[in-house]
Amino acid sequence: TAKPSSMSFSNRGKTLEDELNDSNEYYNSRGIAVIHKKPVPIQIVNVRYPARSAAVITEAYFKTASTTDYNGIWQGKYVDFEAKETKNKTSFPLQNIHDHQVEHMSQIHAQGGIAFLIIRFSMLDRYFVLPFEKFIVKWTRMINGGRKSITLLEIEELSVELQPGYHPRLDYLRALPDIIEQLTVERTERQEP
Amino acid sequence: TAKPSSMSFSNRGKTLEDELNDSNEYYNSRGIAVIHKKPVPIQIVNVRYPARSAAVITEAYFKTASTTDYNGIWQGKYVDFEAKETKNKTSFPLQNIHDHQVEHMSQIHAQGGIAFLIIRFSMLDRYFVLPFEKFIVKWTRMINGGRKSITLLEIEELSVELQPGYHPRLDYLRALPDIIEQLTVERTERQEP
Ligand SMILES: [Mg+2]
Ligand SMILES: [Mg+2]
Repeated sequence: TAKPSSMSFSNRGKTLEDELNDSNEYYNSRGIAVIHKKPVPIQIVNVRYPARSAAVITEAYFKTASTTDYNGIWQGKYVDFEAKETKNKTSFPLQNIHDHQVEHMSQIHAQGGIAFLIIRFSMLDRYFVLPFEKFIVKWTRMINGGRKSITLLEIEELSVELQPGYHPRLDYLRALPDIIEQLTVERTERQEP
Repeated sequence: TAKPSSMSFSNRGKTLEDELNDSNEYYNSRGIAVIHKKPVPIQIVNVRYPARSAAVITEAYFKTASTTDYNGIWQGKYVDFEAKETKNKTSFPLQNIHDHQVEHMSQIHAQGGIAFLIIRFSMLDRYFVLPFEKFIVKWTRMINGGRKSITLLEIEELSVELQPGYHPRLDYLRALPDIIEQLTVERTERQEP
């Protein structure tokens, strides 16, 4: 027999990108936020212009992204994030992230924007919002010769976990007030004597 | 004989996109702002994976952009704009702008972001930053059956004109404080009895 209620929140083979695009459409259509996935960067080498039909790109190559996957605006604030899936069950491998993406998030953070990662452990069906400020500590650990991943335990500790739902599929904006508050507290503490 | 000083600020065949990318790199490298051109959206139909070399896209098509060309963050503020060139000498044709781009800028404006157009009159070598709030009035005029362009005279009146230079080539961020102040004044006036 069908089990609609327990099936209802399952992933149904969607990629994290699909889930985030659905969620962004939900946010957008309700005036909650305007956040879009950036197109994949392509190096176009050859284009054919057939008579009476659309131009066809006949040779092109994938370029390495110089920024993150998503950015936009929410409650007047600039939001910027990278989405990553892993099949690993116990840790998130840092080789998934490129140097220039870390550099980009660091610049966004310096400008006062909200930068974070959304990590999906696909075998566990678990989703986490990891703020850049927490991520960079583990990234720096790797740079300094430490482990090349963040353990699931660490991610549980440092992130806001998302419970996937229907509308929106992934309500990741709900994690942001917590992240912003944490940041404010830390900045204040750092300024105290 | 060479005339370096009068040639120095000439365009030298660069496109507006080149000029803006140069300017953004300048801003970025100095920590002034983080603003990037979004990649051109492409519909990929076929990809070949040759042994021992990079994947080749062998069939793809240009998609209509659903947002604007550029976005990013400046002084904690979300910035979003569309860049357009015209060869016209007396007006800016509105057919250059797509409905969904206007819709997008309108959403950004509603979220409290700074949305604008950068318009280059290439035959005149003149550049203008036209705030969305001024642009939308002329767009609405067209929707209501009025003229399908904005006259140069109107643009002179409604925009901040940019003087192209060396570093950065187009210092368009310099126009933003004026635009923000104007907006604040208008919002305050609207709230008064
Ligand atoms: Mg990604
Ligand atoms: Mg453009």
